[in-house]
Amino acid sequence: MVLFGWLCTLSNSMAKVFLRNFSKYINADAGKTFLDVLRENGIPIRSDCGGIGECGKCKIIVERGVTTPLTEAEKRFLSVDDIDKGVRLACQVKVVTGEYTVWIPFESLLQKYKSADIGFEREVVLKPAIRKFFALAKPASLEDVRADLERLLEGVSSYVDVDGVDTDLYIVKKIPDVLRGGDWSTTLVFWNNKLLDVEAGDTRKRLYGVAVDIGTSKIVLHLVDLSTGETVAVESMQNPQASFGADIISRITYAMKSSENLAKLQQLVIRAINILIERTTSRSGVDKRDVYEVVVAGNTAMHHLFLGINPSYLGLSPYVPAVRRGVYAYAKELGIEINERGVVYALPVVAGYVGSDALADAVAVGLNECKEPCMLIDIGTNSEIILNTGKEILACSTPAGPAFEGASISFGMRAVVGAIDQVFIYFDKSLGDYNVRYTVIGGSKPVGICGSALIDIVTNLYKLGIIDFRGRFREGVESKRLTVENGRKKFVIVWASETGINKDIAIDGRDINEFILAKAAVATGINVLLRHTNLSVENIEKIYIAGSFGTYINIENAMEVGLLPKTSQRKYTFVGNTAISGAKMALKSVEIRKRFEELAKKINYIELAAHPLFKQEFVQNLRLPSYIISKPV
Amino acid sequence: MVLFGWLCTLSNSMAKVFLRNFSKYINADAGKTFLDVLRENGIPIRSDCGGIGECGKCKIIVERGVTTPLTEAEKRFLSVDDIDKGVRLACQVKVVTGEYTVWIPFESLLQKYKSADIGFEREVVLKPAIRKFFALAKPASLEDVRADLERLLEGVSSYVDVDGVDTDLYIVKKIPDVLRGGDWSTTLVFWNNKLLDVEAGDTRKRLYGVAVDIGTSKIVLHLVDLSTGETVAVESMQNPQASFGADIISRITYAMKSSENLAKLQQLVIRAINILIERTTSRSGVDKRDVYEVVVAGNTAMHHLFLGINPSYLGLSPYVPAVRRGVYAYAKELGIEINERGVVYALPVVAGYVGSDALADAVAVGLNECKEPCMLIDIGTNSEIILNTGKEILACSTPAGPAFEGASISFGMRAVVGAIDQVFIYFDKSLGDYNVRYTVIGGSKPVGICGSALIDIVTNLYKLGIIDFRGRFREGVESKRLTVENGRKKFVIVWASETGINKDIAIDGRDINEFILAKAAVATGINVLLRHTNLSVENIEKIYIAGSFGTYINIENAMEVGLLPKTSQRKYTFVGNTAISGAKMALKSVEIRKRFEELAKKINYIELAAHPLFKQEFVQNLRLPSYIISKPV
Ligand code: FES
Ligand code: FES
Repeated sequence: MVLFGWLCTLSNSMAKVFLRNFSKYINADAGKTFLDVLRENGIPIRSDCGGIGECGKCKIIVERGVTTPLTEAEKRFLSVDDIDKGVRLACQVKVVTGEYTVWIPFESLLQKYKSADIGFEREVVLKPAIRKFFALAKPASLEDVRADLERLLEGVSSYVDVDGVDTDLYIVKKIPDVLRGGDWSTTLVFWNNKLLDVEAGDTRKRLYGVAVDIGTSKIVLHLVDLSTGETVAVESMQNPQASFGADIISRITYAMKSSENLAKLQQLVIRAINILIERTTSRSGVDKRDVYEVVVAGNTAMHHLFLGINPSYLGLSPYVPAVRRGVYAYAKELGIEINERGVVYALPVVAGYVGSDALADAVAVGLNECKEPCMLIDIGTNSEIILNTGKEILACSTPAGPAFEGASISFGMRAVVGAIDQVFIYFDKSLGDYNVRYTVIGGSKPVGICGSALIDIVTNLYKLGIIDFRGRFREGVESKRLTVENGRKKFVIVWASETGINKDIAIDGRDINEFILAKAAVATGINVLLRHTNLSVENIEKIYIAGSFGTYINIENAMEVGLLPKTSQRKYTFVGNTAISGAKMALKSVEIRKRFEELAKKINYIELAAHPLFKQEFVQNLRLPSYIISKPV
Repeated sequence: MVLFGWLCTLSNSMAKVFLRNFSKYINADAGKTFLDVLRENGIPIRSDCGGIGECGKCKIIVERGVTTPLTEAEKRFLSVDDIDKGVRLACQVKVVTGEYTVWIPFESLLQKYKSADIGFEREVVLKPAIRKFFALAKPASLEDVRADLERLLEGVSSYVDVDGVDTDLYIVKKIPDVLRGGDWSTTLVFWNNKLLDVEAGDTRKRLYGVAVDIGTSKIVLHLVDLSTGETVAVESMQNPQASFGADIISRITYAMKSSENLAKLQQLVIRAINILIERTTSRSGVDKRDVYEVVVAGNTAMHHLFLGINPSYLGLSPYVPAVRRGVYAYAKELGIEINERGVVYALPVVAGYVGSDALADAVAVGLNECKEPCMLIDIGTNSEIILNTGKEILACSTPAGPAFEGASISFGMRAVVGAIDQVFIYFDKSLGDYNVRYTVIGGSKPVGICGSALIDIVTNLYKLGIIDFRGRFREGVESKRLTVENGRKKFVIVWASETGINKDIAIDGRDINEFILAKAAVATGINVLLRHTNLSVENIEKIYIAGSFGTYINIENAMEVGLLPKTSQRKYTFVGNTAISGAKMALKSVEIRKRFEELAKKINYIELAAHPLFKQEFVQNLRLPSYIISKPV
């Protein structure tokens, strides 16, 4: 990149920016900052300081194109190494002229991923299962007495194999009147080879689909225009099943008791999906009847409860699901309110505890296409780990428990507004005591601690020698922040006066223990997969961190504390909620669905609890710091 | 055939008889008559005198094999020509030894066809759409955590393409419990590629299907064991829609008025089918839940009413059906009471007035495979004519009206017990007047005249000069049988004292006129097809007479009177109710279904009313005698 911006006159001409992440071109007015240009084009770029060069979060890499020179702000935030690679602050660098190629580091896109409603999504060639074709039929006459259906199909014979078209009673009953009602001009709605509907007139533009990620705690829904591939609206809400248990097992237990209970849980999630469909469509002015397909990702228990499959056997060893392959159903039979002929595709699952959400993660990041070994870790109540060794793909699930989602932690909470998401504990010489810096989601007064902050806290406490390798508070450490309540020691993160709850936000030994159990579970999964395949973390080229972890985590700390394997930080990529991204890719393309089906079949599921290395690994990881075994045994 | 039977000792050894009509071998005890042997093997052979050599109806042709010599009875009934060809009376000729090849003339099979519930049916290789496979799955364990469905399909992977199996919500919901309930031994029910059901244990033997012919006036149903191909039971009843009109048009008119009317007509036929299913299954000890498929033939209006398709456009020019191809539906959605997952296949139709019944006729006799030109005539209220010229297949429909079914004739009735079915009028010199010989179905006192008798009567009256070419009673003919009632002349067939109704059974000018209209309609259809294809009747090798005409008709008379084209009587073959036979063939084999679909597509439908030759032909045929044009113009 040559910095001769000042030599050029800023012109009013349009420049073109190729966004390599999204494989798309956007137009840019010369003179505008890249931040403005990206925002105008709906790219969710992080800019914590609002674009005044004070946060350094808006990093982009201008790989090609003429730019304005480095500002003082950029010099403050960018390392020599950064500058070498073309890293710039989007709020500082301006468009000059000509063509640009820009790469946006995942970290800079994180702001919006924080919501856990969207994730990294690869471009797909639009090839939805639902297709619409317009046919202008020749009216029937005594000289041309072909049957209505065959007359109609003739009009689309260049797109579909007319003889192979699958039809049903609904269609043959509807066709005579639609054909004549629309003056022989008709739109045919196909769902793969099935003639799903016939509509009078030309309705080709009205073609929408919905992708859903049913998480144990949250349901995320995207409305997609299937005629363009554009995401039209995004909505999410808490999974209302939560009132029957925060975790999977308690919901399975509830559903096992009676078919009424199962139906109740099913109805809850379906009603939630209907609400999200209602919100997204009404907000974007889309008619619900123009939504023809719903593609659903979720863990296997959510998948079973959504479909109304008795989940008993998921709760009992050997935890086998009823079905692995994708399940198709009519929206109507499930009670989902879209087009009355609409269909539902529940993506395939891998095993009882590796669901279609994990599969969607893998498809979204292209895990199956890695040339070098790569790994995906979806951290949640149940964490799934998928490893592509280049020769085979393995997956396991590990019950990390709800610590990362804040559920079993004294002041734990989900990564929503008011949650402390980053913590830095240090010895403040001027104070002569430990001090704490933290950030709060939304910037208001803190009300609790979310998972990413928990990692920071435990890492810092351990590094500062405040806790020992078992997570116990060491004797002899002096600090005002070390207090005792009900005989239990704790460390205060935020004093009551600074909080929104008028109570010290602190962490105690039990919280730390919960954390250690959770991190040991994840580390065990990773280590067993690596040792099982005779790989070390050094052999892994890419590690994707996916899922509803909520907010971005401090990778360095996560490695320090033994949650993630210690290796070059560059190998890590945050990809956000790729479960919804993968589901959306499947919604947009039947080719992607094939990939799902193939991958579900191909992935070799490792049942951790039955693995000979499990016990040893788990015990070894039940301590601080890192006990990740990076060499094969 | 060498007649050296007496020279042989009758042995007790088993002989073998190859039945060329049915392409099958049967075993035969030496010393038994062929009639007994055939009866024991369920072959419906005619034997009006009960097998005492007094009726001559049990003719068979022994083409190969050692037989007993001609009896006196045979010498009485067989012509020299017959004897030359190997014709024998089955009740007279006995099995000696070795192997035989026997051909049963269709006329000798007619006895059972008379019921109009069965017809000539070609052997098909059993390949039903519904198949059952037994799978003994390996129980799930921590070492084998495959999903239930995939585990189950593994067991049948040598029979089905596991990845291509189509499944649905019903199956995935049912599978976990069935698998464990049946101790991992399960029967899979496939409908083509769809996994229709899973049943605990081994239920392979319980696999039935039903074929139905929905005629305008009669519904015939056959219950078939799909594991063997055997017909288990046959039932029929009047079409209860008849109370809303004897003919198609009045039912269409009724259904057009409201969707409630349409639903009412649909419900009537479905209830009738349910009754017939109930009767056949209970009579044969079959559980209705073991019936998985219903294959339905019928004219296009019956097809539409059965499926609940608005038939309005069938009643309006250009009379196009809603659909040509076969329609699949779930039995449940139609209200048909078989297995709750059972399916229905409504066979394809050709056009608004050439239905799947005509197609079934064509498939049953193999019309599409004729090497030389051949023709099929299904005589009914609507008569269908299908002509295979060897190069193309054409079909037309002609509204013969209900005369042949007795509906518009003073003493007309259907071919049931009490109907006169054959009539011979002659001048009785001893009486000095015309006299009548007749036969009555069932042998009781006559109560009316059926279609075949009507042909005989008109032919005889014309040949005797009692009526003229316009069908009017000639002046000057003297006979006690010529009476006048309400100013209308009529000819008495049976005097009141001999009848079961205490009333002269007679025919009047209006009846004859109705007959002429009907025969003109049929003759016009035949002639237009022949002239359209530049063929003469001499070019036609085979003419099949199919349908519910009821009883066997006197071909010679039918030719004399101009109903059928005048040609060698040998070309004619009565095939009975081949609509039900064809439907049954389709039930037994998916290959036959393909033939149906192909034929429906291939047949070139000729709309008679729009044909340039129609008017001329019709006018020319509105007279007696034969005006069949046998030379192309
Ligand atoms: S937005 Fe804060 S430095 Fe650019
Ligand atoms: S059965 Fe009557 S002649 Fe043989």
